[in-house]
Amino acid sequence: MNTVITIGREFGSGGRELGRRLAEALGYEYYDNEVLTEMVKHTEMSENYIREIVEGKSHRLFPITVEHTFIAGSDYTIQQVQNIYRAQTEVIKEMALKSDCVIVGRCADFILREEEQVRLFRLFIYADIESRIKRCMERAPEGENMDEKQMRKYIQKVDKGRAGYYEDYTLQKWGDKSNYDMCFNTTNVSIEEIVDHIASLFR
Amino acid sequence: MNTVITIGREFGSGGRELGRRLAEALGYEYYDNEVLTEMVKHTEMSENYIREIVEGKSHRLFPITVEHTFIAGSDYTIQQVQNIYRAQTEVIKEMALKSDCVIVGRCADFILREEEQVRLFRLFIYADIESRIKRCMERAPEGENMDEKQMRKYIQKVDKGRAGYYEDYTLQKWGDKSNYDMCFNTTNVSIEEIVDHIASLFR
Repeated sequence: MNTVITIGREFGSGGRELGRRLAEALGYEYYDNEVLTEMVKHTEMSENYIREIVEGKSHRLFPITVEHTFIAGSDYTIQQVQNIYRAQTEVIKEMALKSDCVIVGRCADFILREEEQVRLFRLFIYADIESRIKRCMERAPEGENMDEKQMRKYIQKVDKGRAGYYEDYTLQKWGDKSNYDMCFNTTNVSIEEIVDHIASLFR
Repeated sequence: MNTVITIGREFGSGGRELGRRLAEALGYEYYDNEVLTEMVKHTEMSENYIREIVEGKSHRLFPITVEHTFIAGSDYTIQQVQNIYRAQTEVIKEMALKSDCVIVGRCADFILREEEQVRLFRLFIYADIESRIKRCMERAPEGENMDEKQMRKYIQKVDKGRAGYYEDYTLQKWGDKSNYDMCFNTTNVSIEEIVDHIASLFR
């Protein structure tokens, strides 16, 4: 039976890095943007359009941009979003059934919650807002000059998108600990240092 | 520097058992009712009275029973509660500074949060209500005949008391993951089986 670790994470908490390093430490497959790439194949929609939806930048009841064309919320739009939901479910399940893996984001915790053929661990990674601002500013690409105030706003915006999409898709509250098996607070913690300890939970 | 693991827990989640086994696995001191016993020595109040307060059965603004005597909420009562708070803080800090240890409940996570002389890990143990009812009914002492409905009510009452006391004392929300370093969901998990994995986080 495959072990699947899903990672939900607040933006800037280091959750993605933790997922990547955890997969490395355990010798598991790692899926992050790969989920999106596979969804493109399943739907034949553009990656940009899918990204708009899954990052919660567009809401299904509001106008959505499809490849430079502006469409009002309509049966067509709702149909498209449902296709995306379906593709996401298919892709995640295929990945989970293929081998041991770590999957970051994409409501994987919800999609796999009743999948009897995998040993599922649903992790949520979080941190206080100050440490997330700090982590993001340290890791910003050179030339990206957001100040602290802008970064705070940006973090809140990204998380709002994630929460919105998760809640639309799952009807559950994003980040509510009852939806996860383990939650780790990474405030003031080095991901590199804790990842081996966390890996030992799954060995 | 001592390692101190504090355990907050929902009633019936197996948090106390987890704490005890974790201390055993790591060779740490284990403090649970011992905190209360020490508080009795620090305050010279009766154990029953202190228990009423720390389990949230009495509220400082409502009448409180002190050894069969009924007192209305008064300066005297408030003073008594403050003495209990002070004793709790002293006792927890003494324990933390003495050796590596696991401390269950008693707002230890909050009391030690800024203690620079210990390596602090604040755990919160939770589970869904159905599995908590099941765990409690399986472990009920012989002759204790609560049915499922009564058990559910009892669990909610105990947790309400814990939450109330924690929130009065810390002004923080009990069980809110932002106040803890790690949260573990024990729904459908055997404490005995997971404790060695969790212990490896601290080795």
